[in-house]
Amino acid sequence: MAHPSNNPLKGYTHYTHFIISNPDTYVAHVEINRPAKLNAFKREMWLELRSIFRQLSADPEVRAVVLSGAGERAFTAGLDVHAASQSEPTLLGSKGDIDGSRVATLLRRDVYDFQDCISAVERCEKPVICVLHGIAIGLAIDLSCCADVRICAANTHMSVKEVDIGMAADIGTLSRLPKAVGSFSWVKDVCLSARTFDAEEALRVGFVSQVLESKAAAVEVGLRTASLLASKSPVAVQGTKELLNHARDHTVDESLRYTAIWNSAMLQSDDLSSALLSGIQKTKPKFAKL
Amino acid sequence: MAHPSNNPLKGYTHYTHFIISNPDTYVAHVEINRPAKLNAFKREMWLELRSIFRQLSADPEVRAVVLSGAGERAFTAGLDVHAASQSEPTLLGSKGDIDGSRVATLLRRDVYDFQDCISAVERCEKPVICVLHGIAIGLAIDLSCCADVRICAANTHMSVKEVDIGMAADIGTLSRLPKAVGSFSWVKDVCLSARTFDAEEALRVGFVSQVLESKAAAVEVGLRTASLLASKSPVAVQGTKELLNHARDHTVDESLRYTAIWNSAMLQSDDLSSALLSGIQKTKPKFAKL
Amino acid sequence: MAHPSNNPLKGYTHYTHFIISNPDTYVAHVEINRPAKLNAFKREMWLELRSIFRQLSADPEVRAVVLSGAGERAFTAGLDVHAASQSEPTLLGSKGDIDGSRVATLLRRDVYDFQDCISAVERCEKPVICVLHGIAIGLAIDLSCCADVRICAANTHMSVKEVDIGMAADIGTLSRLPKAVGSFSWVKDVCLSARTFDAEEALRVGFVSQVLESKAAAVEVGLRTASLLASKSPVAVQGTKELLNHARDHTVDESLRYTAIWNSAMLQSDDLSSALLSGIQKTKPKFAKL
Amino acid sequence: MAHPSNNPLKGYTHYTHFIISNPDTYVAHVEINRPAKLNAFKREMWLELRSIFRQLSADPEVRAVVLSGAGERAFTAGLDVHAASQSEPTLLGSKGDIDGSRVATLLRRDVYDFQDCISAVERCEKPVICVLHGIAIGLAIDLSCCADVRICAANTHMSVKEVDIGMAADIGTLSRLPKAVGSFSWVKDVCLSARTFDAEEALRVGFVSQVLESKAAAVEVGLRTASLLASKSPVAVQGTKELLNHARDHTVDESLRYTAIWNSAMLQSDDLSSALLSGIQKTKPKFAKL
Amino acid sequence: MAHPSNNPLKGYTHYTHFIISNPDTYVAHVEINRPAKLNAFKREMWLELRSIFRQLSADPEVRAVVLSGAGERAFTAGLDVHAASQSEPTLLGSKGDIDGSRVATLLRRDVYDFQDCISAVERCEKPVICVLHGIAIGLAIDLSCCADVRICAANTHMSVKEVDIGMAADIGTLSRLPKAVGSFSWVKDVCLSARTFDAEEALRVGFVSQVLESKAAAVEVGLRTASLLASKSPVAVQGTKELLNHARDHTVDESLRYTAIWNSAMLQSDDLSSALLSGIQKTKPKFAKL
Amino acid sequence: MAHPSNNPLKGYTHYTHFIISNPDTYVAHVEINRPAKLNAFKREMWLELRSIFRQLSADPEVRAVVLSGAGERAFTAGLDVHAASQSEPTLLGSKGDIDGSRVATLLRRDVYDFQDCISAVERCEKPVICVLHGIAIGLAIDLSCCADVRICAANTHMSVKEVDIGMAADIGTLSRLPKAVGSFSWVKDVCLSARTFDAEEALRVGFVSQVLESKAAAVEVGLRTASLLASKSPVAVQGTKELLNHARDHTVDESLRYTAIWNSAMLQSDDLSSALLSGIQKTKPKFAKL
Repeated sequence: MAHPSNNPLKGYTHYTHFIISNPDTYVAHVEINRPAKLNAFKREMWLELRSIFRQLSADPEVRAVVLSGAGERAFTAGLDVHAASQSEPTLLGSKGDIDGSRVATLLRRDVYDFQDCISAVERCEKPVICVLHGIAIGLAIDLSCCADVRICAANTHMSVKEVDIGMAADIGTLSRLPKAVGSFSWVKDVCLSARTFDAEEALRVGFVSQVLESKAAAVEVGLRTASLLASKSPVAVQGTKELLNHARDHTVDESLRYTAIWNSAMLQSDDLSSALLSGIQKTKPKFAKL
Repeated sequence: MAHPSNNPLKGYTHYTHFIISNPDTYVAHVEINRPAKLNAFKREMWLELRSIFRQLSADPEVRAVVLSGAGERAFTAGLDVHAASQSEPTLLGSKGDIDGSRVATLLRRDVYDFQDCISAVERCEKPVICVLHGIAIGLAIDLSCCADVRICAANTHMSVKEVDIGMAADIGTLSRLPKAVGSFSWVKDVCLSARTFDAEEALRVGFVSQVLESKAAAVEVGLRTASLLASKSPVAVQGTKELLNHARDHTVDESLRYTAIWNSAMLQSDDLSSALLSGIQKTKPKFAKL
Repeated sequence: MAHPSNNPLKGYTHYTHFIISNPDTYVAHVEINRPAKLNAFKREMWLELRSIFRQLSADPEVRAVVLSGAGERAFTAGLDVHAASQSEPTLLGSKGDIDGSRVATLLRRDVYDFQDCISAVERCEKPVICVLHGIAIGLAIDLSCCADVRICAANTHMSVKEVDIGMAADIGTLSRLPKAVGSFSWVKDVCLSARTFDAEEALRVGFVSQVLESKAAAVEVGLRTASLLASKSPVAVQGTKELLNHARDHTVDESLRYTAIWNSAMLQSDDLSSALLSGIQKTKPKFAKL
Repeated sequence: MAHPSNNPLKGYTHYTHFIISNPDTYVAHVEINRPAKLNAFKREMWLELRSIFRQLSADPEVRAVVLSGAGERAFTAGLDVHAASQSEPTLLGSKGDIDGSRVATLLRRDVYDFQDCISAVERCEKPVICVLHGIAIGLAIDLSCCADVRICAANTHMSVKEVDIGMAADIGTLSRLPKAVGSFSWVKDVCLSARTFDAEEALRVGFVSQVLESKAAAVEVGLRTASLLASKSPVAVQGTKELLNHARDHTVDESLRYTAIWNSAMLQSDDLSSALLSGIQKTKPKFAKL
Repeated sequence: MAHPSNNPLKGYTHYTHFIISNPDTYVAHVEINRPAKLNAFKREMWLELRSIFRQLSADPEVRAVVLSGAGERAFTAGLDVHAASQSEPTLLGSKGDIDGSRVATLLRRDVYDFQDCISAVERCEKPVICVLHGIAIGLAIDLSCCADVRICAANTHMSVKEVDIGMAADIGTLSRLPKAVGSFSWVKDVCLSARTFDAEEALRVGFVSQVLESKAAAVEVGLRTASLLASKSPVAVQGTKELLNHARDHTVDESLRYTAIWNSAMLQSDDLSSALLSGIQKTKPKFAKL
Repeated sequence: MAHPSNNPLKGYTHYTHFIISNPDTYVAHVEINRPAKLNAFKREMWLELRSIFRQLSADPEVRAVVLSGAGERAFTAGLDVHAASQSEPTLLGSKGDIDGSRVATLLRRDVYDFQDCISAVERCEKPVICVLHGIAIGLAIDLSCCADVRICAANTHMSVKEVDIGMAADIGTLSRLPKAVGSFSWVKDVCLSARTFDAEEALRVGFVSQVLESKAAAVEVGLRTASLLASKSPVAVQGTKELLNHARDHTVDESLRYTAIWNSAMLQSDDLSSALLSGIQKTKPKFAKL
């Protein structure tokens, strides 16, 4: 496997805040690219993130995505608070003379839109593997909660930081973390206290499913996993993602029914015979575009 | 305790694909009995499974059930794909000349019915302890997710295998696993990649709650636990199963209300005084049929 | 920090079954105070518990609460069954000559009211840290499941005891435990069997998030954590509690929307600038009453 | 059109409590056939009803069903209370010496099973038109609420009668009527008071969608409507039934998503081009079996 | 029947803003008693309303309730805005120097509490018949939406008035009206425009289920209906209310299951045999207290 | 009032398939403008519709919207089937050689996107009044179901037409109509049979809330109503729309809570005092932009 950043992914070269490469067939690697600022997010970055993942979602050349941060120091230090305070006067400081209900309306629209941008990672039809390393706080948790699989480097330091800037996290951490990790006591502990937790703790509670010794190793494992997923039937892999996300949010009965409806179409696929045949012939199956 | 398979359970001798024995008072042991084929399932087997668990559910002579696989090699290797491809032409290969909507209708009905058969284990009013060993892939996971308690032998090898045959699992794994295990990252990892995980990993993430050194030891612990549950108030035990399954799928407020309604009838039971009295007198309580 | 019980919290001295002290600014410590009876609960105690937590919920002098049991032997041994059998004739024994539907009506109202008293801990707007030690069975689990963070002493022995008195737990354990702990197999195991589990096991499955070597050490860590939470923005901390509880019971989409509505008002807070400024100036922020 | 009862529907002649005829291509007419007892239901009748509608649901020769009552006097007078009191001793009178929780368990299983039998009408994949006439009380309302379209004769007298026999209706009326009729005040009025309402009132509030001058006229319109539905694309008609029932019970967002999944398979149908072509050519389209 | 206000209901004479009389056995009549101010509500009134309906809910001497307004001019003109602006400075005008998040917290608690008081009418286990007359605007609609049956005098003028005082109705109208009336277009029309609608229109859309020529006639019909409901099995009537309210808010499947659980206790009632026997003997049944 | 189409609304002149005018302050009038083709929709039209309603939603110059069709003959004849069959080969006819699961994936994405465009009318934060006239079939019903208030001309002929082209309606009618109209029997009747219903019938069942003698009269009433809504507090009107739509899809308890959270911000508005003051002074209130 070549260096992950070597091959730009076709059709994604116009994005400016993310490096989008094509390390292996059907694999996209998206890197947050603002290492000088610890990959902190400005508004134009999350807008761009949404565009990228919408495009990946429908791109037949992509079957698995790795999301990581450029540079050695941080996956992302979260929201660029300095930039936010300048571009979003409603959020911090002078609201001029408009009343509280109108400020609330502006804030609500802003939060919706910000949530929608980050949720694009979850809505992406292709599986997303998030590789965390170094500093990973605030928005880093919101963002990684939208990924399907989380792995991290041993040096990762994570924190649901929002309480320390005087607010409840509102871009997805509080909505998704209770369903990503089994111990509600632990979830409450880290969300209420804003304390840092490290890679080992993240593995123990199940927030990440693997810890590697370095960022390089973690990215390599992330890419290798992506290559593995990309080699499998896209009908099977993308259906599995959709059905697991649906199950998280519904009763078992509703999930079973939705699954049956889904598969009544998705079983009409050549992938079943291709997969079975390859299994018998010990060959690598080929699957049509999706 | 005699050898588990020695005493046939009365009223269940006409079943042909499962051995149903009565190792202890109020305990039923159901063994999948097709060891020569690694206990792989054919359609007639899941239809029979539904009949068995429906009967157990209402049988006043049964208060706890152990489910395991016959033979040393496998709990079950899942769906017998060879048999399926012959008996269900709609699923694999030639659909003749009917259009996609009609194929979908046939598939949907088939999947519903298959789901319904496996869900009979969850709907059984008595607690079910599933003992896994050896090969336990594909349908093995769907099936064991319907049990209340899962324990396994150290040699168990598990896999959510469906992706490798070109389809998303649709008989319950994707619906129940996210609610049976706390780490959503781990659930996605094993479901998307179809990779094998072993007993130790299953214990660490909470998929099973105990690992024993051998199949024999695991079955013995399973039976001992079943005997323990069978010695307790059936009103209490069966109510607990029902209320926990309801809680999994509802808000805390709805679950509290449902619990209150449930217990407004179920507290009108002689089991409370029997249990209290036995506690004081250090005797073994006796409870009426249920 | 002075001895936790030294300073009575102003406005709470009229309560008789609980010691309510004020060990640090904005911190309340509520101790179940019936150590001679292993802190077992009588009806008047749960009624008082509700009053206390309702008052704490709206008390601007309180920002974090610690809940523990007085004495060395028990957090609480649960329901005082002896007292219950005397005060609630409908529950145990002679119902006179009223019919089953009327008994059910009385039981239903009783269970609702009992649930409502215990749920007051969860509804309290301020975070509650529960410190378990010694005997912690039956109602102890219902009660601690309502807290946000659970920690315990190494000597804690826990049990969902209700099955052993012939009934399904109905004051909250069965409703909340499946969402507090990731392993459903473990939850079913301990709830169906009523077996005891210790501190180490509780930590491993995530029921508690920390184990300390003694009750004293656990209470001290509980109080220190409470002090930490109390030093942070109450808008941020209380919002985080509310949003996490909402998330547990709703889909991610509904939770995101609710979060946005919530924060459209709660971001209009001076706490953001105070927190940011203190971060820059390395001073301790001060936040207005809430 | 021949007399509705003339042609027995093939494959249904072994049923004894219902007349099942085939008045037009793809149309089934099911008549409750116990006119001497005002078509009152005994247990064996509702068990048979379930079998019939399960069979109709999957029968490719049937595309629309009419349900009505034999004889001039009653659609049905509901439960045969006399028969019930004999066959179900748990329900009325002597429970022997079993305790309240065990009686409740028997009752619960009975009610589930009874509900399941009646719900078979709603679960039937083909549209069901219910024609009411004469006496239509108690179970008549539960049953007709499961149909898709309700029409009635001018002489119909309806009542949610259960309150007058000392119980809340539990076979579906209270679950479905609030979603079948817009005025909740009216629903409460008739359910709480058990008062009779006539055809005109039923039309005004929307319980029925048409009133005809006589039973004969109502049956004829019912059959004509069934013939119309049976002449249309079965993919379209059966999908519409399924999606409307799903919509009733879900949010608009969930319904939209379910609809899209459903149609992703069901639009792969030759019925679209057949229907379009017939529209252009002014011919009667032919649709393949479903 | 004597004049409705003649007999004070025992145990309710200490209330000051409502007249609570006992016009017939098991019937309570609650009259809003501030006619000089068009029965407009002050805070102490809604607090008292909650107390009254909580007491009625558990009072075995009451089986049906009529709610109406004293005087000829108004059922109620809604919130007493003048009183509100004085007692609730947070709502209107000067909030002092507290920030928006803290104002929001106070408002949220206020609205919850106000909602909870009005919802007490819905939570009352006994059926409530609301008789509207004259002016019935703003809170009048919130309040009457909590009743089970609504009837009105021909002179009633109703309006969802809140938009005209610059706010969205928040005490229940917007939550309940869409489920009380079938035409969503009509609901939106009257809620968005705050326009007045009269008795005839209210009947046509199903908001009320009966219109009488005068207040006196409407109250008389209300009392007569209450007497009718009070003469029936309280187990049946109260269960019907509970199950209909549950059905409104749940899927049909969940409602059916809840109904079965409910009736597994409530069918164990002497009311069934009493009701059946009276039916046969043409006598008036007597039912035990509930 | 000038002719509705006279003043183009500023900022909307670049749209080509819709005429967007500004007949009164804060009022937008959107006309479907393809009268030569009976206002039938092509893909570019629904994409444009989404853009328009997104823009209107956030436009502070707009407080109420009227949606109608240009020309005398039709509101809209629905989907332009001819255009659809050319631009969407997946839908009708040749799918080339891709398998059923891949066709389903394309169809699913298409339906989602189409649904999303039409739902933009419902998501628009400002109230939308839909004026129907002449032919209003197929997509006309999906579209008008997204509006808040529906009125129509006496000559309107409506039909849920999709069954007649061999498919179940999937752009919203089946999801929204059961919640817009109270009689489920009527909803099923018109959706299953695809039969035409006229203005009078639509009024009787509550689908529309007003019928006017001609298109001109209906548009005039629509515009007058819009002017009325636009003259009121935008905080109140837009909140009412949001809360009613939320209520439709949630339990009463959830709706009450959401309402309280919403109003905790939205009551912090100058509109309350403006509205109250104008009420007292009999002047026309002025409200700030929203």
